[in-house]
Amino acid sequence: MSDEFPIDQRAQNYRGYRAAGLRLTEDLVSEISSLHRQRESVGTVALHAFDKAHVVMLTERGLLSMAHSAQILSELRALEGGDLVANRRSAGGGLHAGETHLIRVLGEEVGGRIHVGRSSGDLTSVSVRMAQRERILTVIGAVNELRDRILDLAPFHWESVMPTYSHGQHAQPSTFGHVLLAWETALRRDFERLASLYSRVNRSPAGSVIGTGSEFEIDRCRTATLLGFESVAVNTFDAIFAEDLTIECASTLTILLSNLARWSDDLLLWSGQEHSIVDFPDRFCGTSSIMPHKKNPYPPQEIKGCLSSALGSLVTCFAVEKGPTGLPIADRFFAYEGVWSAFEQANRSLRLMSLVIPSIAVDVNRMYDLAARYWGTASDLAGEIVRQTGTPWRTAHQIVAILVRQAVSEGRSPLDTNTTHLDRAAMEYMGRPIGLSESALRDGLDPRLAVRRRRSVGGPGPAEAAEQSTEMAAALRRDQLWLGERHSELDRAANELELAIDRITGTHRGSK
Amino acid sequence: MSDEFPIDQRAQNYRGYRAAGLRLTEDLVSEISSLHRQRESVGTVALHAFDKAHVVMLTERGLLSMAHSAQILSELRALEGGDLVANRRSAGGGLHAGETHLIRVLGEEVGGRIHVGRSSGDLTSVSVRMAQRERILTVIGAVNELRDRILDLAPFHWESVMPTYSHGQHAQPSTFGHVLLAWETALRRDFERLASLYSRVNRSPAGSVIGTGSEFEIDRCRTATLLGFESVAVNTFDAIFAEDLTIECASTLTILLSNLARWSDDLLLWSGQEHSIVDFPDRFCGTSSIMPHKKNPYPPQEIKGCLSSALGSLVTCFAVEKGPTGLPIADRFFAYEGVWSAFEQANRSLRLMSLVIPSIAVDVNRMYDLAARYWGTASDLAGEIVRQTGTPWRTAHQIVAILVRQAVSEGRSPLDTNTTHLDRAAMEYMGRPIGLSESALRDGLDPRLAVRRRRSVGGPGPAEAAEQSTEMAAALRRDQLWLGERHSELDRAANELELAIDRITGTHRGSK
Amino acid sequence: MSDEFPIDQRAQNYRGYRAAGLRLTEDLVSEISSLHRQRESVGTVALHAFDKAHVVMLTERGLLSMAHSAQILSELRALEGGDLVANRRSAGGGLHAGETHLIRVLGEEVGGRIHVGRSSGDLTSVSVRMAQRERILTVIGAVNELRDRILDLAPFHWESVMPTYSHGQHAQPSTFGHVLLAWETALRRDFERLASLYSRVNRSPAGSVIGTGSEFEIDRCRTATLLGFESVAVNTFDAIFAEDLTIECASTLTILLSNLARWSDDLLLWSGQEHSIVDFPDRFCGTSSIMPHKKNPYPPQEIKGCLSSALGSLVTCFAVEKGPTGLPIADRFFAYEGVWSAFEQANRSLRLMSLVIPSIAVDVNRMYDLAARYWGTASDLAGEIVRQTGTPWRTAHQIVAILVRQAVSEGRSPLDTNTTHLDRAAMEYMGRPIGLSESALRDGLDPRLAVRRRRSVGGPGPAEAAEQSTEMAAALRRDQLWLGERHSELDRAANELELAIDRITGTHRGSK
Amino acid sequence: MSDEFPIDQRAQNYRGYRAAGLRLTEDLVSEISSLHRQRESVGTVALHAFDKAHVVMLTERGLLSMAHSAQILSELRALEGGDLVANRRSAGGGLHAGETHLIRVLGEEVGGRIHVGRSSGDLTSVSVRMAQRERILTVIGAVNELRDRILDLAPFHWESVMPTYSHGQHAQPSTFGHVLLAWETALRRDFERLASLYSRVNRSPAGSVIGTGSEFEIDRCRTATLLGFESVAVNTFDAIFAEDLTIECASTLTILLSNLARWSDDLLLWSGQEHSIVDFPDRFCGTSSIMPHKKNPYPPQEIKGCLSSALGSLVTCFAVEKGPTGLPIADRFFAYEGVWSAFEQANRSLRLMSLVIPSIAVDVNRMYDLAARYWGTASDLAGEIVRQTGTPWRTAHQIVAILVRQAVSEGRSPLDTNTTHLDRAAMEYMGRPIGLSESALRDGLDPRLAVRRRRSVGGPGPAEAAEQSTEMAAALRRDQLWLGERHSELDRAANELELAIDRITGTHRGSK
Repeated sequence: MSDEFPIDQRAQNYRGYRAAGLRLTEDLVSEISSLHRQRESVGTVALHAFDKAHVVMLTERGLLSMAHSAQILSELRALEGGDLVANRRSAGGGLHAGETHLIRVLGEEVGGRIHVGRSSGDLTSVSVRMAQRERILTVIGAVNELRDRILDLAPFHWESVMPTYSHGQHAQPSTFGHVLLAWETALRRDFERLASLYSRVNRSPAGSVIGTGSEFEIDRCRTATLLGFESVAVNTFDAIFAEDLTIECASTLTILLSNLARWSDDLLLWSGQEHSIVDFPDRFCGTSSIMPHKKNPYPPQEIKGCLSSALGSLVTCFAVEKGPTGLPIADRFFAYEGVWSAFEQANRSLRLMSLVIPSIAVDVNRMYDLAARYWGTASDLAGEIVRQTGTPWRTAHQIVAILVRQAVSEGRSPLDTNTTHLDRAAMEYMGRPIGLSESALRDGLDPRLAVRRRRSVGGPGPAEAAEQSTEMAAALRRDQLWLGERHSELDRAANELELAIDRITGTHRGSK
Repeated sequence: MSDEFPIDQRAQNYRGYRAAGLRLTEDLVSEISSLHRQRESVGTVALHAFDKAHVVMLTERGLLSMAHSAQILSELRALEGGDLVANRRSAGGGLHAGETHLIRVLGEEVGGRIHVGRSSGDLTSVSVRMAQRERILTVIGAVNELRDRILDLAPFHWESVMPTYSHGQHAQPSTFGHVLLAWETALRRDFERLASLYSRVNRSPAGSVIGTGSEFEIDRCRTATLLGFESVAVNTFDAIFAEDLTIECASTLTILLSNLARWSDDLLLWSGQEHSIVDFPDRFCGTSSIMPHKKNPYPPQEIKGCLSSALGSLVTCFAVEKGPTGLPIADRFFAYEGVWSAFEQANRSLRLMSLVIPSIAVDVNRMYDLAARYWGTASDLAGEIVRQTGTPWRTAHQIVAILVRQAVSEGRSPLDTNTTHLDRAAMEYMGRPIGLSESALRDGLDPRLAVRRRRSVGGPGPAEAAEQSTEMAAALRRDQLWLGERHSELDRAANELELAIDRITGTHRGSK
Repeated sequence: MSDEFPIDQRAQNYRGYRAAGLRLTEDLVSEISSLHRQRESVGTVALHAFDKAHVVMLTERGLLSMAHSAQILSELRALEGGDLVANRRSAGGGLHAGETHLIRVLGEEVGGRIHVGRSSGDLTSVSVRMAQRERILTVIGAVNELRDRILDLAPFHWESVMPTYSHGQHAQPSTFGHVLLAWETALRRDFERLASLYSRVNRSPAGSVIGTGSEFEIDRCRTATLLGFESVAVNTFDAIFAEDLTIECASTLTILLSNLARWSDDLLLWSGQEHSIVDFPDRFCGTSSIMPHKKNPYPPQEIKGCLSSALGSLVTCFAVEKGPTGLPIADRFFAYEGVWSAFEQANRSLRLMSLVIPSIAVDVNRMYDLAARYWGTASDLAGEIVRQTGTPWRTAHQIVAILVRQAVSEGRSPLDTNTTHLDRAAMEYMGRPIGLSESALRDGLDPRLAVRRRRSVGGPGPAEAAEQSTEMAAALRRDQLWLGERHSELDRAANELELAIDRITGTHRGSK
Repeated sequence: MSDEFPIDQRAQNYRGYRAAGLRLTEDLVSEISSLHRQRESVGTVALHAFDKAHVVMLTERGLLSMAHSAQILSELRALEGGDLVANRRSAGGGLHAGETHLIRVLGEEVGGRIHVGRSSGDLTSVSVRMAQRERILTVIGAVNELRDRILDLAPFHWESVMPTYSHGQHAQPSTFGHVLLAWETALRRDFERLASLYSRVNRSPAGSVIGTGSEFEIDRCRTATLLGFESVAVNTFDAIFAEDLTIECASTLTILLSNLARWSDDLLLWSGQEHSIVDFPDRFCGTSSIMPHKKNPYPPQEIKGCLSSALGSLVTCFAVEKGPTGLPIADRFFAYEGVWSAFEQANRSLRLMSLVIPSIAVDVNRMYDLAARYWGTASDLAGEIVRQTGTPWRTAHQIVAILVRQAVSEGRSPLDTNTTHLDRAAMEYMGRPIGLSESALRDGLDPRLAVRRRRSVGGPGPAEAAEQSTEMAAALRRDQLWLGERHSELDRAANELELAIDRITGTHRGSK
């Protein structure tokens, strides 16, 4: 080799194709962060797999000789000894660390052959999509874990009556178990969104080169298979510029965090002294350097911070993409940074919530007390009037409205209220008493009975809640199976890639 | 009736349950816009259908007598004579216009019975979801229409060679037809996202009341069926507070608009004097009050404005939802306003693009000229070197890099460049000439050949592009069928509702 | 006139310079909303004033004959009879309604002379800046009004002890009066920002034409003076494209609304049943169609909705401006719409808050009770230990931390705690009692004394709060004077303009 | 000391007040990032200065004995030996590293005395404001530096005629020098905003403690003076929660970046092959791994990325602050992270632009050629008609509109157009020729003359531009003086603090 190409010494010092003296006459100024950002924004493991899969495909298509290929693949495997990320970083890191390493150790004559039929555009889009799909699966795992934690806890609270709120004011009583099932329901939508997004992300841009595909006779399907993609992202121009997927990652994660942050605000509210219905274990709390009584719960605040941060990243993604198709390239790495951060925020928040849910203390007596004290069952009293007397709903509703107004202005609680008060209100509204029995009035105002009466589909009645929970557990099992299958597909592809390399190199790395 | 209830005169002047003297002692101050915003943010047609479906369900469940029900349903149908929206508006508009009308004409004794087993929360969530699903279908129709326009135009441009860009600089040549197919591909993802969202939105919250379901024995499944919902949104607490769906509407539309805005920026760039490759018909253009030469294309600017507006609405949605579950109620209408506006922006933009695409003039000669002039095929020359001489890619690439640098500094275009120049660059790089033939050099640099050589899956080669186009047309037909089925489902449900009313009232309105 | 120019009949039907047959060959399609948006986004009154000032300046500079000028100015004044906005709308509305009217009634020979030395760019930027400055002054007026309301209420609450919060938990007690002064302080910063913005906005772009100024010998300073601008926005290219001012309007308003929304969340929290420390008069509240006990306060929800809406508009503004200088023109009207909306949101919110502040009921006993119950004075007990015994702060702090932990776990409130408990904690921490007297312990824990002790600058001590209030009132008077001066300047300029017109037309309209 | 307090051994291992066994019973779980985020979000140097200033103030007020104070101040100074940041980090870092160090080396008996009369709230707000003001000054310095670069370059381009654009289409010609002055004008507004913000930030919250001030007799003015604050942020509750200032930092920086990003898009557009009017030196460019002709300019892409990133941070800030006053505490550090990042983005972008401006190559011939070719002077031809023939503006404008339409449809450039063509257009419009001389037509269409004719205030005429430039340079000198004074104030305060420490410790550190 050295006879033919007297460039090998240079090869040992190869620092990449952007060297002063080739296309450009000057070295890059240090103020430019683009290459650094690019390096941080692509997945090293994914890049390395792509290097290998590309070489296998080139070899199988006759675009690389078996001899060259074996040398290249062996050297790529050598990079895996010890710490792959560190090894590729010492070869310059970033997109072209594989090629740099190969040229340094095999010379340009061999190492310079890896990049045929692809471009930095391939490397970026393939590694970004692989990194996105991996992170999507991780988040899905964390979503399912939290659903599991919730479904574990909820059955202990089918009868834990608590107030609900609207407009910041007491609405009707429900149970803590039923509210937890609402959380699970929202998380299932988050699962759906993530799984749907996964199917769009998991299409291979490999071979799209820089939007126009390759003039070499490459096999895009083969590379896709070796990298575990479900299919090829067909149109090469779209495949390179499909940044709507990056935005969709950010939006899906921010929506997920919006749900988590809402529940965090619920928990914060409930943990305040005035509510005092949940209590965080000390291990989740800080205190104050000045106020020795303080016990400040951190997890909900962190989750809310993660939402705000992810929302910013989402806006960044949209802003980066504004402009003509060929413009945002180096700026796109600012979007990637935001998206990786949003993945991290989502994972952190899900993990924290999964830690918190099983360990918070819930004061069911205090919950019941609040539910009973502030007229949350006034509508049930109106319902009782309808059921017992055949009064139209609106009439019953307005009589009770007068009852409550009078009670509030006279400082009377539901417990101190009797049919005399009710009849006074009825007289005011329609000139005659309503004639409800005292026991019917008591039943109407009882928060426990209010919950038990709510037996229709999806409601908080204990039996109905238990049924919802059973259906949810079944759905969760299906969703866990789905996740397992996705991981298996990726494992199978990784094995197939190694076996193909074994065939070329005549060595055996062993399946992962 | 009037004998039993001496309140009928009051009924004629009924103005709703929030009247001074019942729960509250004062009329609402005029500075509050919440009720107005609520009125504008819910779908009147949807509310009316819900009024009818709820009454049918109550009747079938024995919660309303046949006699009362027949009176109520007849009066609700009477509202449909002439202009439903206007009629309901004169009954006060908003959520409770149906009940207000019924009480005014039938008295509280009959009209006051409609609201049993539901709440304003039902009315809002049902009507918002119905309005969302209808608008999603409309946008999907407009997406498919644009896909169709694009697939009509693309085949005329399989050979229309044009430059592509990255970093704002000429990259490799492609064809206009291939670029159009990239647009179609992105729109198909938009279709996928919208269809996936539709399935989440089209679940019925009816019967969730204000999060805790009803203590009356209502049948949520029946109401869902009568309103054309695919299923019931089971957990009642989630069903009322599932505002992640509103945010997902906004994010899905903003992503769609982000795609359209990117292409709008492309069209604007290409229509500028320096590019001069597309020209908008005069009917899409304005001129200037001072510069008589001006011809300013409006559609791409409008579409970009729509993106910016929708992005703002998306942020508004997220901001509104930040807080505990029971807080954002009146403020939520600010989110709805933004989402309805985003639907309108998306529709407007899709319609404009569907008008523009078939009518813009494309200067294929100018396109070709630009593609040929700025070294966009330099990589193909490197490829030619690889194919003809077996030189490693990186070596060929760097020789051509030197060639281009020298050419640019000497003011030489690709057309003026020959093998002497190439060998000079090769000498500089590796101390010996590369020995490419003149015809190979010419072939390597020819933009038309460059495009034809790109035959791998998804690439711009004319035959390959035609094949992509065929597959896309088939997918579009499937997606149109999907859309038709959704419309049919809604029509069938509307008929079923009318037939159920016919049964109760003994009259016949006729199927729609 | 008609002899020389046989075009007068056409003039009567003049519909503007964008007519098919001149520069362009087709009428504009109806799908374009740009001109409509433009019409809605510029201030009619401002445009009309600019029409007049421009004509006066042209006349004074000899660019328009006295005869033509007198005809033109008389006709412009004629437009003011009745409803100026309606009159200009019937002349086509938008930027060029003045010219359209003039050509229709005076023919192109006279009416066609008004537009010399200016462009649509002038008309837009002048009218937008005039509309912005007017709205800024309106918002400043509303800010000052709210400051005034707050300063009126605060002195009634120098001794109204209430809890404050951090991390959603009770912190130390303050007074409601002191918290109100905090609100005033933030509003003063909002005043500063708005006043600073006003000075940037109030510079005249008139005569910048479309970025390059005019080749006619116009006098930009004269036009600026006649329109009440403080100075000329000198560089003509910047003056037309200085959209950072539009963004700054949006950001300044959103920051203001962020403050108002924070206090709205405070009020909502305090109005909830668990806190029950503020109560909204019924006229600000709604109730529920199902829950007769409900009393839902609207103003804080509306204000929060306004914040979310304005934040969306701010993002829209930034998104619109992303791109090269000459691109966003028609899309810019989407930004203007958002900004006008943000002004409206800010005004509405300030007005609502000014109505609410003097009328909410504050339960000072409940406030005190909450402040006393949850150890908010624990840090004052530590301070008492420091002052009485010379113990280092950290030591005292940690002893009290142990005291509180033990008390909470034993269900003991501050009122049930005595020196025996304290000494037990001290023993645990340092092996010996602390030896505080019982009365010192009681003093340390007393919320009223805690507030009174806080006498340093800016603190909640009643005397100190009263002093802050006095200083604030003085500052508010200065800020009101500033506002009055701005209004006077605008009035003076309007008079000067009319006097200049009087001179040319020889008639008298009377000063405004 | 050790005799009195047997806790010194514990002191050596002191790890802060949040230790299991005091207020809380468990150590904090590792998943919480809040304390880490807090550590990273506050300025170490600022915290250290506050530690010292607080001790000096306590001593002067008699709240700390001279003996204790001398020991404490000496130990704080000892922390400055070597690397202050590293030293404080080894004492635990974050807010309380000073106290931790003091307790470890002096025992709780002495070291435990530093925190009297302050809280973590003081530490955070003081250090954040000091970090903000320092960064604001740094950004102002970079803004002024860029203004200086621009004012250096502009005079070379008073006659460099170039096209301007609107709606993405050629508008009128200006000069590159005039456009540069527009940039300077916008930067001056950025300076104004930053300077105005500085005055709001530079008010001392020290002594606000956690919103209620201190019950100890501290002197807030003295601490403010020692830390270089212009005044005290009076109301203690506002001072701690004045996060509108953090948002204002973010919005001011994002507006600044929006200006820079707009010019970056201009530069990118102009550097494209079709425009080819600016060229970036190779040291700012990358090339491609596949396309050897590529020369991709990085700086404008980076600056655009910085804008998008900062916009995200701004939205994060607003989102974090949404909620009641006492809620966002730990989440606030997510806002700070975004703001520090925005400061960094702004600095990086300004530096890059300051590097680029003096070094880009401008092709003045190409600029002129573009300005002359596309009818950018059509309005000047209309003006010439007005001036030469007394024709009304609108008439002249519409005749030239017809002329251009005919020329474009016949493929005629301005250079090929003569009075015959003009008269044909005039005939079409008004039935008679206009009778302009050939030389007047030529003059009217000449881009150089067009620019020279624009002599009114702020226009691109060379002499007028030179005058603008002179005025701008004078304003810049004033703004530099302002900046110098701010730095001097901070230096003076730092000296005063050290002298006060010298007085207490009896040692001399020397003025900085």
